[in-house]
Amino acid sequence: MTDFTSLAAGRPYLAIPGPSVVPDAVLRAMHHPSSNIYEGELVDMVPGLVDDLKRVARTAHHAAIYICNGHGLWEASLSNVTQAGDRVLVASNGRFGAGWADTARALGLGVSVVDSGMAQPWDLARLRAELLADTAHEIKAVLAVHVDTSGSIRNDVPVLRALLDEVGHPALLMVDCIASMGCETFEMDAWGVDVSITASQKGLMMPPGLGFVFFNDKAAARRSELERVSPYWDWRARSKPDVFYQYFCGTAPVQQLYGLRAALDMIHAEGIENVWNRHALLARAIWAAVEAWGQGGAMTLEVKDPAQRSHAVTALSLEAPDGTRLRKWCEEHLGLTLGIGLRATPWGHPEWDAHFRFGHMGHVSGQMILGLLGGVQAALTACDIAHGSGAVEAAAQVLAQKV
Amino acid sequence: MTDFTSLAAGRPYLAIPGPSVVPDAVLRAMHHPSSNIYEGELVDMVPGLVDDLKRVARTAHHAAIYICNGHGLWEASLSNVTQAGDRVLVASNGRFGAGWADTARALGLGVSVVDSGMAQPWDLARLRAELLADTAHEIKAVLAVHVDTSGSIRNDVPVLRALLDEVGHPALLMVDCIASMGCETFEMDAWGVDVSITASQKGLMMPPGLGFVFFNDKAAARRSELERVSPYWDWRARSKPDVFYQYFCGTAPVQQLYGLRAALDMIHAEGIENVWNRHALLARAIWAAVEAWGQGGAMTLEVKDPAQRSHAVTALSLEAPDGTRLRKWCEEHLGLTLGIGLRATPWGHPEWDAHFRFGHMGHVSGQMILGLLGGVQAALTACDIAHGSGAVEAAAQVLAQKV
Amino acid sequence: MTDFTSLAAGRPYLAIPGPSVVPDAVLRAMHHPSSNIYEGELVDMVPGLVDDLKRVARTAHHAAIYICNGHGLWEASLSNVTQAGDRVLVASNGRFGAGWADTARALGLGVSVVDSGMAQPWDLARLRAELLADTAHEIKAVLAVHVDTSGSIRNDVPVLRALLDEVGHPALLMVDCIASMGCETFEMDAWGVDVSITASQKGLMMPPGLGFVFFNDKAAARRSELERVSPYWDWRARSKPDVFYQYFCGTAPVQQLYGLRAALDMIHAEGIENVWNRHALLARAIWAAVEAWGQGGAMTLEVKDPAQRSHAVTALSLEAPDGTRLRKWCEEHLGLTLGIGLRATPWGHPEWDAHFRFGHMGHVSGQMILGLLGGVQAALTACDIAHGSGAVEAAAQVLAQKV
Amino acid sequence: MTDFTSLAAGRPYLAIPGPSVVPDAVLRAMHHPSSNIYEGELVDMVPGLVDDLKRVARTAHHAAIYICNGHGLWEASLSNVTQAGDRVLVASNGRFGAGWADTARALGLGVSVVDSGMAQPWDLARLRAELLADTAHEIKAVLAVHVDTSGSIRNDVPVLRALLDEVGHPALLMVDCIASMGCETFEMDAWGVDVSITASQKGLMMPPGLGFVFFNDKAAARRSELERVSPYWDWRARSKPDVFYQYFCGTAPVQQLYGLRAALDMIHAEGIENVWNRHALLARAIWAAVEAWGQGGAMTLEVKDPAQRSHAVTALSLEAPDGTRLRKWCEEHLGLTLGIGLRATPWGHPEWDAHFRFGHMGHVSGQMILGLLGGVQAALTACDIAHGSGAVEAAAQVLAQKV
Repeated sequence: MTDFTSLAAGRPYLAIPGPSVVPDAVLRAMHHPSSNIYEGELVDMVPGLVDDLKRVARTAHHAAIYICNGHGLWEASLSNVTQAGDRVLVASNGRFGAGWADTARALGLGVSVVDSGMAQPWDLARLRAELLADTAHEIKAVLAVHVDTSGSIRNDVPVLRALLDEVGHPALLMVDCIASMGCETFEMDAWGVDVSITASQKGLMMPPGLGFVFFNDKAAARRSELERVSPYWDWRARSKPDVFYQYFCGTAPVQQLYGLRAALDMIHAEGIENVWNRHALLARAIWAAVEAWGQGGAMTLEVKDPAQRSHAVTALSLEAPDGTRLRKWCEEHLGLTLGIGLRATPWGHPEWDAHFRFGHMGHVSGQMILGLLGGVQAALTACDIAHGSGAVEAAAQVLAQKV
Repeated sequence: MTDFTSLAAGRPYLAIPGPSVVPDAVLRAMHHPSSNIYEGELVDMVPGLVDDLKRVARTAHHAAIYICNGHGLWEASLSNVTQAGDRVLVASNGRFGAGWADTARALGLGVSVVDSGMAQPWDLARLRAELLADTAHEIKAVLAVHVDTSGSIRNDVPVLRALLDEVGHPALLMVDCIASMGCETFEMDAWGVDVSITASQKGLMMPPGLGFVFFNDKAAARRSELERVSPYWDWRARSKPDVFYQYFCGTAPVQQLYGLRAALDMIHAEGIENVWNRHALLARAIWAAVEAWGQGGAMTLEVKDPAQRSHAVTALSLEAPDGTRLRKWCEEHLGLTLGIGLRATPWGHPEWDAHFRFGHMGHVSGQMILGLLGGVQAALTACDIAHGSGAVEAAAQVLAQKV
Repeated sequence: MTDFTSLAAGRPYLAIPGPSVVPDAVLRAMHHPSSNIYEGELVDMVPGLVDDLKRVARTAHHAAIYICNGHGLWEASLSNVTQAGDRVLVASNGRFGAGWADTARALGLGVSVVDSGMAQPWDLARLRAELLADTAHEIKAVLAVHVDTSGSIRNDVPVLRALLDEVGHPALLMVDCIASMGCETFEMDAWGVDVSITASQKGLMMPPGLGFVFFNDKAAARRSELERVSPYWDWRARSKPDVFYQYFCGTAPVQQLYGLRAALDMIHAEGIENVWNRHALLARAIWAAVEAWGQGGAMTLEVKDPAQRSHAVTALSLEAPDGTRLRKWCEEHLGLTLGIGLRATPWGHPEWDAHFRFGHMGHVSGQMILGLLGGVQAALTACDIAHGSGAVEAAAQVLAQKV
Repeated sequence: MTDFTSLAAGRPYLAIPGPSVVPDAVLRAMHHPSSNIYEGELVDMVPGLVDDLKRVARTAHHAAIYICNGHGLWEASLSNVTQAGDRVLVASNGRFGAGWADTARALGLGVSVVDSGMAQPWDLARLRAELLADTAHEIKAVLAVHVDTSGSIRNDVPVLRALLDEVGHPALLMVDCIASMGCETFEMDAWGVDVSITASQKGLMMPPGLGFVFFNDKAAARRSELERVSPYWDWRARSKPDVFYQYFCGTAPVQQLYGLRAALDMIHAEGIENVWNRHALLARAIWAAVEAWGQGGAMTLEVKDPAQRSHAVTALSLEAPDGTRLRKWCEEHLGLTLGIGLRATPWGHPEWDAHFRFGHMGHVSGQMILGLLGGVQAALTACDIAHGSGAVEAAAQVLAQKV
């Protein structure tokens, strides 16, 4: 056939690592007139909403809701526990670790980054060395990204807690769960995390625009020691959901709160542990497919050790420029949008076009993932990119829970 | 694994042969306050809407819009061209041909059915014999279903026109395009069809609740000869879209008209011929997968000749009760709803559970069909139903337009 | 000011006698993907829906749901209890009584109309005479419109039942409640009504497109005697909501059923008697305003006796062409759409422009009615139409429940 | 009547000074799947959106879009032009002037407030004295609220510009237009305003959650001199809408941008000057009604001079506790929600219950305002609060543009 027929008409599927697919029920809940923000239904709804949020983060402590995106959360969390001149230590293995470090620097903090390289596990030896060297305890916080979507590594948070305990360092453990919460197992209190952050548009299945900071009493105590904190980011009033206007530092995000109510209802109806299991199984199916493709071609997963791979996002590569070719074919011909790669190589560098990512966070079923993988199979074929066979069958076998 | 994790959470996929998946843009357009039905925007919108409908049916003649479903259309069309005591000839090869015949009988018509058997091509010899035998031209109309979703056969409408012409019979040719319009090539005027009908909830991508009857001047002349026609079904006032209130025989279906506007915009933006090509290619991909599965198991397509298979729906079977087992697994574990079988065997008969159907009409992309096929692959595996390998790859190869 | 500033931008208010204002919750419920029509949530929902519908009609008998509008209901109800050649008696005092009679004639019935004149109470003497004269009981049904929106009269249904009982005539009592159900007190069983009909787009607060026929066992028995009934209108299968596919005579109106669920939830949350009381009070407020305007000008209510005025619609007049001038000013300058008049005078007759109507059915609050009345006050002033003072204050006093 | 019938069922009307009524078209536009944030429709849409935003602010300079509420904007704007230790001068006559001053203090600025008292015009003499006394030009910015919703005063911005010019002070003129933009005449460039801010949920007719900072080159130059600015608030990247990801400092607020597009389309279709005229006329109608009520009772407008009254919000009072009684009656009985008072007296103080406010910003028509005023008329009557007569008629006369 010389004349291509596009098969993109139909329900588009946005499979990028956020924003994720928003459930109909959430969009429907947000299609709501504005409400009174002084009393009534909306005001009464918030305390329960905050409790249900904390059940997702697995914490009995505090939850603040911000109108902001993920970059805002980096600043919100740091603003409450550090001040210019303080030091922080960043365990980084991807763009978002580096991004949080940039935010810290821009806030005037002294920043030490232990960068283990994109998609490589944290360098615990160097982290230990940094902590041990800090005998004056100038390091106020250790910043860690749970899942760094750039390389799709899933980091081992408890091991960092253990390290802090082992060396007896009092720094706060702060974890960016933007790409992991509501997808990957995360136990804020049980794992000894002092501050965790997440945003609305990934595992929480909402439009972008809301951010959440969870913090325990140790972190709250640090806040009390600070003289000056940005009033917008200050989490003190934001930890008291029964004082509505102050809890939102002014006008509340009315429609988004109705959407959040619907999203939390869905999560808790499924059960947060079931949600984690679903993501794990879907991720294993993706890996099985990629491994099969890789048997006969260049496709590879960025993270080699399955135990370190995210269940919410998968970074992978082909030979440049095949990553980009495949991605564009899927979008134009199938209505399937894959994520661009976010590797160390700069945009425009030939190598950049090797990389791409699958987002599989939040509102994703087995059938959607098989559509994604089937789409990639079609694209590999159409673009004449070498690949092994049996990929979708391998994935289906995982989802059939036969392996 | 003994404990199954459901993978159904996520965007559900309704792959039954209607109602089909409604595009977000259509639902959004219908989320509209009621409008003035005497003048203004809505009233002004209708003439253009009717023109765009006719472009889908490929007719320059008349289009009536009814508030009803497909069963209503059977009655609407017959009511305008027949009266009790008239005869009609039905070319049937499925449940819906039989259903239209039942409606005709209930209206008091004399009905001759030439039933060639579920999913078998029309028996042209017997049809010719019936027409030739009717020297008095008592047969007022030949009723034919373009795509009968029960067995998923796609009938050859032009051959029926040729037969009528050849034998010189003046009966009207009436075609039920409920499952085909907006999916399969259909050329009302060029094919010499006198009356065609379709409903909103399949190729037109809308919620159920609207029906459309297209008719030419020959059919209109027949209407003029009738003394008494049900006032609701009477199409005379319904052929003049510039007289709004009468065109809808009372209150217009306000919100559905906004939805129809959005749906027609999508169809004509893609181009009706592209829409047909897309459906054809998607159907070929499905057949390729089913044939691969059939190599190692019992799965078979009901329609043997590819030239006679619908591009909008596919009926198939396994050994009973595997059809039902597969269908239920897809729904419970993947959020994928397949259609039940509608074979001749009665509900409850053991054989019933052998059959099932895929709907692939309207708002369906390559990625969705691959999700459907991948889902079936997972279900076959999970349910230990024997099947051949390479199915999804075969489908992907078709969609890659390499074969 | 020579240059007028339009004040129409803002939420438009459609105050015509149907379609009425659709609540946000109903539109939101209808913004729903299509569902499986063979099993699951939607199928399970219907029996309860039908029960809740019957609670609105105040009947313990049968309820059929049709995909149609009000004109369809006229035909649906007659089709189940009469056949061509039967006689019906119509008690008419407006366009819709006349319209139902037209439908009956078009169905081949012998129709006697006792027309008491637009907005005049039924002529009970003539109705009695017709019934007494029918010693052979050829009259199979008496057709009566509860509220005829053309003149806005509210008829006394129990008196008609009493008349039938008094003269011992076995005709069915059939009542068109399209404009009254969910607005006015109506007690189907207690009042001895055999068949009642209503549509979705008025007191039931939904988009147009669904119709409801309620019938008792006496009417059902009449159906059993008929040999041939249109299969679409046949209510036999439509009285068994647990057989989903047949109950809807084919594909169900999926999204509208979700909307109906939301609308019935709202009605029963308020309480049907409270709904009636609210409408009564709002209507009294409107009358008070019109009477005040009428003290200093030509504005008059079509129905003179308050006991005969509808609580759902109000027909009124000015001197021609002031009705039309006022209506147009409200639409252009205030975003307020009033209903056109439907008097006996033909469209285009100079007198036509004297009349107009207010719709106040369904989702209407005190504040909305005061906006309507305030808007009319502004229009009277802007158009220099003579009028008395104190109108809105008089209405407010009624709503304050001080008079 | 002893038993009250609630008239609240119907479309609720939220008449508080923000969030305002969101148009159906805006909510509909936001009911949208998430989009690709790296390329495509959404990315392409933003530059035009920013241009259309600037047309609302009447500036040819820069516009930054933040995910935040109004309190966030106070911080965003200050963060780009001041640093801890700088001085600002605040011209305050209400809670929001005081609130901006609080934010400034919390950011470490030296703050001089010239408070002229709630709802009193700015004290220009004291402001001049402050500026003249600042011979070292330590004051970096003068902060002024255009419309302070607490007392509903509309301040004369050009006079402040003239004062700065007259005394030759180089401080930036920063104006909070949160309650005025899209409602009141505002000419950023023509009036010599250096920085202006507004939020989504008032005149822009959207849900809360987006904020906008407009700034000219003088303000941009100040930003360049600062060493450290919060990275979230930093407006440098946020002034380049063609660099999508950075423009939004991370993930963009996808759905809200679609809503903003719809809202700006509505504003520019009406014409921004027509929008201003509409608000002015509606406000005059409200004042006329209040003055009429005040003739026979205690109701008074907080701002005495009409030239200083806002066109978007009206603060008023009765004798305590009648303000609260009236407000509660409207909500419970009419579905009409008025704004609470925000006077100097603390919540709980008996005097607090004297005050209340009407919001009339954004998506408000003549008919809505008349519904509000009619509702208040009913409430005054029901609650036995003394009041003069003729109020709604006086308002209608203004809207009829006869006075």
